[in-house]
Amino acid sequence: MPEDKKQHDATEHEAPEKTEEQDATSPEQGEMHPADAADHIENLELAEQIALVQGMDLPHAAEAIAEMERHERIDLLEALPRELAAEILGEMATDDAADIFDDLDEELGDKILERIEREDREEIEALRGFDSDSAGGVMNTDALILDEKLTADQAITIIRREVADKDIEVPYYIYLVDEAEHLVGVLSMRDLLLAKPGSMLSDSFHDKSLVAVTFDVDREEVAHLISHYNFIAIPVVDYEDRLLGVVTVDDVIDIIHEEATEDMQTMVGAGADETVDTPWKRSVGKRLPWLLVNVANSAVSAYVVHLFEGTIEQMAFLAVLMPIVANQAGNTGQQALAVMIRQLALEKFDRRRSWLAVLREVRIGLANGLLIALCVLGGVMLVTLNPELSFVMALALLLDMVIGALAGSAIPLVMKELGRDPAQASSIFLTAMTDSLGFLFLLGLAQLFLV
Amino acid sequence: MPEDKKQHDATEHEAPEKTEEQDATSPEQGEMHPADAADHIENLELAEQIALVQGMDLPHAAEAIAEMERHERIDLLEALPRELAAEILGEMATDDAADIFDDLDEELGDKILERIEREDREEIEALRGFDSDSAGGVMNTDALILDEKLTADQAITIIRREVADKDIEVPYYIYLVDEAEHLVGVLSMRDLLLAKPGSMLSDSFHDKSLVAVTFDVDREEVAHLISHYNFIAIPVVDYEDRLLGVVTVDDVIDIIHEEATEDMQTMVGAGADETVDTPWKRSVGKRLPWLLVNVANSAVSAYVVHLFEGTIEQMAFLAVLMPIVANQAGNTGQQALAVMIRQLALEKFDRRRSWLAVLREVRIGLANGLLIALCVLGGVMLVTLNPELSFVMALALLLDMVIGALAGSAIPLVMKELGRDPAQASSIFLTAMTDSLGFLFLLGLAQLFLV
Repeated sequence: MPEDKKQHDATEHEAPEKTEEQDATSPEQGEMHPADAADHIENLELAEQIALVQGMDLPHAAEAIAEMERHERIDLLEALPRELAAEILGEMATDDAADIFDDLDEELGDKILERIEREDREEIEALRGFDSDSAGGVMNTDALILDEKLTADQAITIIRREVADKDIEVPYYIYLVDEAEHLVGVLSMRDLLLAKPGSMLSDSFHDKSLVAVTFDVDREEVAHLISHYNFIAIPVVDYEDRLLGVVTVDDVIDIIHEEATEDMQTMVGAGADETVDTPWKRSVGKRLPWLLVNVANSAVSAYVVHLFEGTIEQMAFLAVLMPIVANQAGNTGQQALAVMIRQLALEKFDRRRSWLAVLREVRIGLANGLLIALCVLGGVMLVTLNPELSFVMALALLLDMVIGALAGSAIPLVMKELGRDPAQASSIFLTAMTDSLGFLFLLGLAQLFLV
Repeated sequence: MPEDKKQHDATEHEAPEKTEEQDATSPEQGEMHPADAADHIENLELAEQIALVQGMDLPHAAEAIAEMERHERIDLLEALPRELAAEILGEMATDDAADIFDDLDEELGDKILERIEREDREEIEALRGFDSDSAGGVMNTDALILDEKLTADQAITIIRREVADKDIEVPYYIYLVDEAEHLVGVLSMRDLLLAKPGSMLSDSFHDKSLVAVTFDVDREEVAHLISHYNFIAIPVVDYEDRLLGVVTVDDVIDIIHEEATEDMQTMVGAGADETVDTPWKRSVGKRLPWLLVNVANSAVSAYVVHLFEGTIEQMAFLAVLMPIVANQAGNTGQQALAVMIRQLALEKFDRRRSWLAVLREVRIGLANGLLIALCVLGGVMLVTLNPELSFVMALALLLDMVIGALAGSAIPLVMKELGRDPAQASSIFLTAMTDSLGFLFLLGLAQLFLV
């Protein structure tokens, strides 16, 4: 692992000025933060994008392309001359480069990869070996690592030289390793600044309670740790405690955004990573399977209604009440579902806490069910002047709202217990349940008591 | 503003060890990170919580309580002796203290506040004056501010003294102000470490393109800026560019989590800040109003069905098909809604981009609508052997799915245009539209062509 070669820019606050200093030859890009340059590039036609990137210097091009939308940057890189694409990807932080190679056409990716210099290529290949949902898959390998036997002033000299030579950023933390490359400590620039000059780093910063994660920890758990402890970065190690890389808080923010998007969108059967920029045909492909599942589910509800066709022929007003039952119970369930999915995103649940959460939702569903059922009882009574029908409707509504609360809170927990994504299509299964049971309650009770 | 008095702990990586060093007298808390201490306290009964907090030293108690759940910490502080509560709140980072005072019973809050020493009290009161959804409402005032006329080595001496004297953390950035307290530059510890010792800070770090926000910028926009530029902190200024405070990335992570929770939960009419720990009666109160809106909406759909009661009496099978139309169109709309709400959470839309996004969703709705309508056409044909009915069903389904796509994508944009929260109850209004129009299409077409 090279020491701090292509550091993420998260320490650099006043980026626009800095870039200008570094690059007086291309002021139009030089004044822009990479994230803004990425936005600028995305707004151009592909031919213009290529011309612009060919005119940029490599570090800026690499930083800007790393910040671009996933699909946009792939389109651009596939259109660039291979030699230039290889130079840009070789210049990029290795974690970003590895992500891009995952998205690139495999054959083209291999051709580009072989043009990248060996050290970078090996790092990129190593990173691609990690599961993209794990700490290894989101870490970058550009950590600043020092031998614990150095003194504080030796460390400062090394860092000054590295930074001055390569015009790169110093990371938040400096990691200490022993002679076997085991991670033994961590210190901040502040610690270094305040350390006694002649003191050996291992004396002050050897740390047995250091928080690190192994490469196979889920990225959501990494995000949870960083957000729980208010860290800026967390080291990633192998099973022998050797430092492999670092996950930084800016990556964690991306993870948190992506996970929230994934939960909200997969809940209703949209694609996990769809955006308004996803080609519409791709979105059709992502959503259609779940809409077909939904058709199958609706067919079950329809079958329930079919069983009571005779009842409906005798009392068509039941068809008027059907949507009210289904809609109220569905909404009640979705409220429970939303709260549960967010909670599962934010913390771990043990079994006792899960039961308490379901119990809470059932209580809420029961209370709201009673109040809404009373309103509806009054409403139906006013319209129909039929106390039996009003009572049947209120009872069906109450029962189905409790079912909604129970299903809405239990579905994500059951999914999780089965090792599945708790959000995926949960709203679709919830609605299937509240629809079919709601119709069964309403029409069944009507057949028993009214017809 | 005191210089860096009670810094957030985000720079401190190896917190457990540090705390131990600072506090050998209470090892059981001393070894714990504040976030873990908070979890530990939350798992105790109130009487045990009080006993524990009374035994902790003030800095640890303040840090741990700041990390506790919102409702839990209020319950605890209200139960503590007022003098101790005042001492703890005086010790706490001012932004956390201000948040707590916003939640405390007003009378009790005033009594506690008057026991806090003047400087802290005034800062807390100033922070409480800011809208809690604005940069001012989430910033902390513990920035490290230096005069731009200092030299680099003077600055280092000041920082060493501050840090050593008060045993506090150095923040990521150091802010430079001119004699009129205008923010004129920002530098990192790294910049300071590398600066020429005798050089005046203003020479190297005066920065005209510095990114700062005014106190009234929405907190979502602050989060967006920090996440867009990969910053660790962003300065907050008044209209005269005087530094008021700093929003740090750990606060931004909380904001991102809260906004994602808010969007997902308010979309279906649950409370924005509900968790599984919210007392169930409070949740009933949050959700009931939207369930009542939903009843009113369902009554409209029911009225549409009521208009066609005669048709249903003649052809009860229509009631069998009703849930399929409503359910498919509702799901199609929710897919569009989910993608739009997440996009609005992640970026700003101009009008052209909004139209393109709606157009994209309508295309997807149309394509999926055609495919699903074809399936359903075949299915209904198989079951009923009635080509007219099958065709009416397929057409109603197609029309309603397009309506769903249109409404799902447009509702959040229209809400935003009206200055409302784009997510709030959007799913409820969407369902109202797809239900009532779906029934209108199905039953209306049936009346026209079949009965």
